[in-house]
Amino acid sequence: MSCVFCQIVKKEIDAAVVYTDEWVVAFKDIHPQASTHVLIVPKKHISTLNQLQDADAEIVGRMVLAAQKLAGEFGIAQDGYRLVMNCNSDGGQTVFHLHLHLLGGRRFHWPPG
Amino acid sequence: MSCVFCQIVKKEIDAAVVYTDEWVVAFKDIHPQASTHVLIVPKKHISTLNQLQDADAEIVGRMVLAAQKLAGEFGIAQDGYRLVMNCNSDGGQTVFHLHLHLLGGRRFHWPPG
Repeated sequence: MSCVFCQIVKKEIDAAVVYTDEWVVAFKDIHPQASTHVLIVPKKHISTLNQLQDADAEIVGRMVLAAQKLAGEFGIAQDGYRLVMNCNSDGGQTVFHLHLHLLGGRRFHWPPG
Repeated sequence: MSCVFCQIVKKEIDAAVVYTDEWVVAFKDIHPQASTHVLIVPKKHISTLNQLQDADAEIVGRMVLAAQKLAGEFGIAQDGYRLVMNCNSDGGQTVFHLHLHLLGGRRFHWPPG
């Protein structure tokens, strides 16, 4: 298995893990775009949003709920934050294991990139 | 009920609705930031990400699955797309009924705003 996020999930390589539960692992982005920038990844390998099945609805919901919990822990819940998922080249996806970006600690502009 | 997205869900006001199912309604953003820019909203009123309950995991997953289906229908699945949810002022949230932005048809930059 050469997927770097699967290796993080399996603790085969190091990451700054900040949260884990039954469904997801969350760790700090190594190229942060804001003072809080965390990636939430499902433990199950799903390469892109296009590969999601209906049965994965719970997993995706749990990714967002984990982001919400982390926003509270990082003290950005009330000021606000942005959640982003990128698919394929136009979206800017660079690692092909589904991941949700949690970004906070500054005001985000519109459009979102 | 003065929530504009609830009024769209109830068909009390018009919107360019492109999809509906048991959980969500999707319609075109009136200020599009890309050639495809659709908002996916839960039928249930949830004001921000901070108000999500664990029991809402299925709803949130279905929002993302609806976005995935729409990406296929709009022909942007392979080139790619970006999904965004904003919370409160730093995130840029302007309507206080949870919504997921599906954006596609161009290459998106990083950071996401």
